[in-house]
Formats: sequence, C-alpha cells, structure tokens
Amino acid sequence: MGLEIYFMEKVKVALFGFGTIGTGVAKILFNHADRITQATGRTVELVKICDKDITTRRDIELPSGVLCTDAESVFSDPEIKIGIELIGGLEPARTFVLRLLENGKDVVTANKALIAQHGNELFATARKFGRTIAFEAAVCGGIPILSALSTALQANTLQSINAIVNGTSNYILSQMESGKTSYRDAVLQAQKLGYAEANPAMDVDGTDAVQKLTILAQLGFGANVSWQSVPRLGIESIESIDFRYAKELGYRIKLLAVAECSSGGLELHVSPTLVKGDNPLARVRDAFNAVRIVGDSVGSVFFQGLGAGQLPTASAVLGDVIDTILGRTAITFRTLNLWDSAKPSIAIKSPDEFFGKSYLRFSVQDQPGVMHEISGVLGGLGISIASMIQHEPENKTNTKSTVLILTTHEAREGDLLEAIIRLEQLPALLGKIVRLRVQN
Amino acid sequence: MGLEIYFMEKVKVALFGFGTIGTGVAKILFNHADRITQATGRTVELVKICDKDITTRRDIELPSGVLCTDAESVFSDPEIKIGIELIGGLEPARTFVLRLLENGKDVVTANKALIAQHGNELFATARKFGRTIAFEAAVCGGIPILSALSTALQANTLQSINAIVNGTSNYILSQMESGKTSYRDAVLQAQKLGYAEANPAMDVDGTDAVQKLTILAQLGFGANVSWQSVPRLGIESIESIDFRYAKELGYRIKLLAVAECSSGGLELHVSPTLVKGDNPLARVRDAFNAVRIVGDSVGSVFFQGLGAGQLPTASAVLGDVIDTILGRTAITFRTLNLWDSAKPSIAIKSPDEFFGKSYLRFSVQDQPGVMHEISGVLGGLGISIASMIQHEPENKTNTKSTVLILTTHEAREGDLLEAIIRLEQLPALLGKIVRLRVQN
Repeated sequence: MGLEIYFMEKVKVALFGFGTIGTGVAKILFNHADRITQATGRTVELVKICDKDITTRRDIELPSGVLCTDAESVFSDPEIKIGIELIGGLEPARTFVLRLLENGKDVVTANKALIAQHGNELFATARKFGRTIAFEAAVCGGIPILSALSTALQANTLQSINAIVNGTSNYILSQMESGKTSYRDAVLQAQKLGYAEANPAMDVDGTDAVQKLTILAQLGFGANVSWQSVPRLGIESIESIDFRYAKELGYRIKLLAVAECSSGGLELHVSPTLVKGDNPLARVRDAFNAVRIVGDSVGSVFFQGLGAGQLPTASAVLGDVIDTILGRTAITFRTLNLWDSAKPSIAIKSPDEFFGKSYLRFSVQDQPGVMHEISGVLGGLGISIASMIQHEPENKTNTKSTVLILTTHEAREGDLLEAIIRLEQLPALLGKIVRLRVQN
Repeated sequence: MGLEIYFMEKVKVALFGFGTIGTGVAKILFNHADRITQATGRTVELVKICDKDITTRRDIELPSGVLCTDAESVFSDPEIKIGIELIGGLEPARTFVLRLLENGKDVVTANKALIAQHGNELFATARKFGRTIAFEAAVCGGIPILSALSTALQANTLQSINAIVNGTSNYILSQMESGKTSYRDAVLQAQKLGYAEANPAMDVDGTDAVQKLTILAQLGFGANVSWQSVPRLGIESIESIDFRYAKELGYRIKLLAVAECSSGGLELHVSPTLVKGDNPLARVRDAFNAVRIVGDSVGSVFFQGLGAGQLPTASAVLGDVIDTILGRTAITFRTLNLWDSAKPSIAIKSPDEFFGKSYLRFSVQDQPGVMHEISGVLGGLGISIASMIQHEPENKTNTKSTVLILTTHEAREGDLLEAIIRLEQLPALLGKIVRLRVQN
C-alpha cells in the first residue's frame, strides 16, 4: 500500500461523529467542494457520515444515503480512502481508527485524548498497514501549530513551548479578570456560550491541556510520555483576589502548558501561571488559544487563533484531508516516525527537580509572628522570598484573618511542595495555600 | 526529471551569497548537520559557497575548497541538487536562479524582491524544467507564514491579510512611539543595530513591504499583480506628534501591508496605519514581524516572530531545504501553480475605489474660519468627519500656526485624495497634509 491511491480523480471520504465539528466539516465539503478541488486537483466526496444518532436535525441538508449507523460497512468499503474521526473520547474512537487503518484507510482526527492516550498503538498500527494519521485539529483547533512543528521549524532545536491550549479555561480566567465575575458564574457563562461541556471538569482541571501538551512535546521534543505522569494543576482554586494581586505585581493569570528544555531534561507541566504583562501570552483573551515556541535559530515565534469551535476546527481537519490526499501527510508521517515506542524519548525531568518562581496566597490569622513563622519554613528549605503583599483588611468586621501574598525566587519544586506541606501545618494558617507559578 | 533524485543518501547543496544570512545557513549546515539528517533521513552536504567576495573573514570556519567565485562551475555540477540563493536584489540573483533551474536544480531563496519582480518568469522556468522554488524566508523570516497559507489554511477562503512585514520600519516606529526619539535618530539606531541597510530607503518608503505583500497576495488570494502597481506610502512623514494624537484616540501607528477582499475585488496597499490598541498587530514591537489572517472557516489567526536576522531567516531557508529534499515542496509547488500568467488573477480593486477611514494632520494658520473651510471641502466630497482634535499651542511664542487632527468616517479613496489636493490649496494651510489610514 502506498501513495498511489490518491492519483485517482475522485477521493471518497467518510466521517465518524456528526456533532458540532462533524457538521462543520460536512458543511465545507458539501458547500465549498470547489475549494477542496482547487486545493487538491481532485474531487473529494463525503460519501458516508456515521453516528449512533442520525435522527437529530443538524444545521445542514445531506444527500440521502449519506447518514448511517453501521460503521463496519464503511470500514469494509474499499472505495473509501480516508476516515475522519470526530467522535471524541477514547471508545469507540480508538476501535474505529484501528479498523480504518487495518482496512487500508488513512485517518484524520481531531481527538487529542485519543492521540495522547493511545498514540503508540495507533501510530504503530498505521505504520504496520502503510497508512497515515493526521491530527492538526487535536491541538489548538485552527492554528496550524502541529504543521509548523512538523515542517517549517524542523531546522531548529527547540528550547521551549509555552501554550494556552484550553479555550474554556482561558475564557473563564478572562471573565474573572474583568473583576465582575466569580469562578462559578464564569463557568456557567462558558457553558452557555458552548465553550464548556456540561461537565467541564477536564477543561478546568488541566486534563485537556496536559493531553495537548504531550502531543506538542512529542512533535517538538520527541517526548514519549504518558499524559497522566505530567504534573497538572487546574484553575479551580483561583479566586478574583488573585487577579488583583497579580495585576499589582504586573502579571496576568493564564493556564499555561509548558515544555521547557533544561540541563536535567524536559520539564513538562500544566499550571495556572502569572505571566508578565508584556508577554504576548498574557494578552490572549477569551476562548483564544496561543502557542509561543522558542527555537535556537528562529528565536520566539508566537501563534494565536481560535482553538475550538465548529469552523476553526473544521478548517484544520480539512487542511489535513488536503495534505493526506496530496501526499504531504505521508511524507511527514514517515519522516517524523512519531509515537514510536522503540525510539528513545528525550529525558523527562522529575517534577521535584523543576526550578521556578511561585506565587503563594495564604489565608492567615492576623496576629504577630505569622510572617516570621512562614519565612522561617521557607528559609529552612532554601526558598527565598522575592516580594510580599499584605493589605489592610477590606472587610473591617473580620479583623481576625488576613490574606498574605508571597512570591518566591527560583526554587526547587520538591522543596516548594515540602514547604507548602509544612506551612499548612502552622496553627496560624487558615485553609489551603493557593500556589501559582510565575513566569517572566 | 522528477522527485527521484532525493532518494539518494547524500544531498549536495550549494549556497550563493555569503553575507549575513548565508553565514547563518552555513553555520547550521556545518555545526548542526545531525539535525538536518534527523529531519530528512539523508546527509545534506554544503559543498560550495559562491560569492564574489571570498576573502572577507566570516564568523565560521569552512572546509577548504567550499568557497568559490565561479558560479557557472556550480550550475554545471550535476552532483549538486539544490541551489540556495541568498544574494538578494535582482541581478545576478535572477540569472543565477534561472541557471540553477535550467540545470535541473531545485531552488531555495530568501529574495522577496526577486520573487515579487520576476515571479512569473522564474516559476514558469521551474515548471518547464520540472523543478521547484521554495521561498518561505522571503516573507517574515522565521515565521512559517507562507507554509501556513500554502498548506494548513487551504480549506479557507481568505477575507484579509494584515501584516507588519518590515522590521526596520516597525523598529523605527516603536522607538518614535516611546516619545524620546526622532525619526532621524530612530533610523540611525536601526542602522547601528543592523536592522536597517546603509540606505534604508526601500524599508522606510514601503517598497520592501509592498513586495512582500504581493507575495502574500499571490499565495492567499491568487493575485498576480506587479508590486509597482500597489499603492504604497512609507513612514517618512510621520512625526512624534502623530504618536501622541494616535494614543489620545486609542491607536498605535504601524506600517501595515493589507490585502482585503471586498465586493469590488482585492484591495492591496501598504500604508502607515492607526491600529486600535486591542488589535494584536498594535502590540508588535521593535523588529518583530506579524501577520493576521482572517479566513472564512478558521476565523482570525495571528503569527508573530522575527522577520529578519541571521538565524531566524536561516531557520526558514533550511526548513525549505528540508521540504525540498523530502518532496513536500514539489507537491505544494505543483498543486498551487503559483505565478502562472495563464491563470486568471483575482480582480484587483482600483485604488480610487478603496473605502476606509483616515487620519489627517494639518498645520494651519491659527485664525477664524479655517475649520469651516476644511469641513467645507470634505463635506463637498461626501467625506464626513469622525473626530477632531486641536490643542492649545504648546509653544507660546508661535501662536500663528496650530496643528489640527481630523479622522474621517469611511470614505472613497479617490474622493479623499481629491480632498487632500483641494485642502492643500487653501491659503490657511501651512505645508503638506499628513495622511494615515485608520483601522479598527
């Protein structure tokens, strides 16, 4: 099996999953077929759309016979050359992709969870059957970031990738930053606007971001790492007050996915982070995504765009379909040899050995000696304080507790986590310490 | 002649032009050969570097026999498969590229002037000899913008491209905006830092930007247009005072290259423009380049990075070398069929028919009735005033003249230019009117 199948004049494709993105892809394929023909020199025909629900009305008129529920009949149709997987989640998406590959079809998918979880299996299967998997839409929707990493930036050794990859979290943080919205209201608003799922847990707890980060790290650094092993912190513990203090210190708060090369290996983590106001990532608002890549030759390159949504994601999916038909995907797929468990991965740094600055918010009893105790714990672990804020209480009726903000100089992560454990045992501490990272 | 030449294990390449960028390319090819091997699966060997000057010491040690002055011997060497043209300018770059193509070699170039001026001839020659031309480095240096337009965004119909493509101008504007630097001093500083040429005329008068714009417009819109026919205005007439007024109105001043689809065709122009503060283009500082693309599916995508400099440009050049070796360039080159004079171009709108808002700065005699006269001329041509600023004179000794700022609502360009001609004939006008565009 090779490239020759795409010398045909008409390419038949099938779509699995007829939700929001699927409808977007179908819209472009049916309403703008000329565009795809112009880009490929071939007619691309969407012959089947498989979904378990084919009765709900979608925002598009389809020729009769296109909708079906019997995926197996599509896998076994030798006329269909490309399967577009837009079901999302792990199963049946995984099985469907494997069946497509086994049946000699190339795959285009927007499924970051699937790639992050089963990359090794899926890519090995594609290689075994001489097929390809394209997945630009899995990370940052319409932003052509995987394409840039796979092709144009290949002459670089990368130093870091810093990215805002979860639009829901970024929308929530943007709303809270405006000062008028609580975390809870911002989540509700994100749901109302269709950014957040009914259950937004995987968006706000960093799961979605960490899955995308491992994909970026595979492409940018050759990191073959399970997403579960990457430290992640979500945005749930952030409060309006943190935005005020961040602003006072010259920062904004973003949920950053970070891959950074250092002497001890690759640091990978997802964390709410104070980002300096003049960093372009600080200005990414609402549901936008953005990626900042630093390479040894190119310097800093910054990409921003819509990371989700029907048409931006469909734009990436169809870009992949075009690349697959033209054979660009095959070249890239075979050269990069991604998710090859036989290939040595870059060394991944143990989280305890990360170095970085932190922002710590304490709720403490307003009594003499508290600061002395806190600084004693930090100093004992070799953590030095960079700045401190304590305002007079706004709420005059509650003079027993106060909020204390500390930022630290660069400290070893293991020491910082140990410090937080010890600090939370101090009798003067009221509740958990909120810890954010700080980046210049 | 076809792709098969790159199934060899060792690919020999030659470099033409051993200046700043050439040295950067040589550095990566000699010092990081492993990286190119990893990206291509082949050994890439830089066997010849041609320059008329091979005695000046560069910042790199070369194996003996690599440097040469006899380009013709390189063209006729059948072992050399790729020629990298980094001479710049029109001749001998044009002749060299033609000789390379005629001799069956693929070409990688960073030369925007050459592509903008001779695109039709060069691309026809490449097609005739079954070869390719890659030119990512010609626009925005290290930013993979041509790659994005040629591949990942192909499922879109573009609505607009707005770009900051001249780093020198952007650096000068950034320095002037800080309020402490005059135009003249900013130019000197840009020269000292190596951003501006000894003769920066083509940077500051918009020539460089307009050449890059026509390349972007060819890729994004299929516009086949001579760069000389595109209206351009440089930054020479901007003064510190304009930044102050722009700020007062909520804008920054950028030299924008604009391609925008409208009902009457494609609007193309390069002009200093007031850009709203919250537009990401407004925040692009110093020598950075940036491109904002709006597509009907992807929405707005924004790219920012270093548009010039030794290593960022070398990153793009080597990305093209890798694409050429792997065959991605050939696929893209043959599918897009760029600069084909037989292909109908998108309709280009006549400059007179552009519609847009303007900023006008008048130096006028401080006497009654001036505003009445100005508004009479504008009103007579159907141009309506959106805002007006006149401050009390700072310089109390000169009370005879004053500065007047007007912004207009959307107006037809032909009417606006006619208005400027008529206004400059008013006896109260002192000197030329400074006109900038205004964008939201």
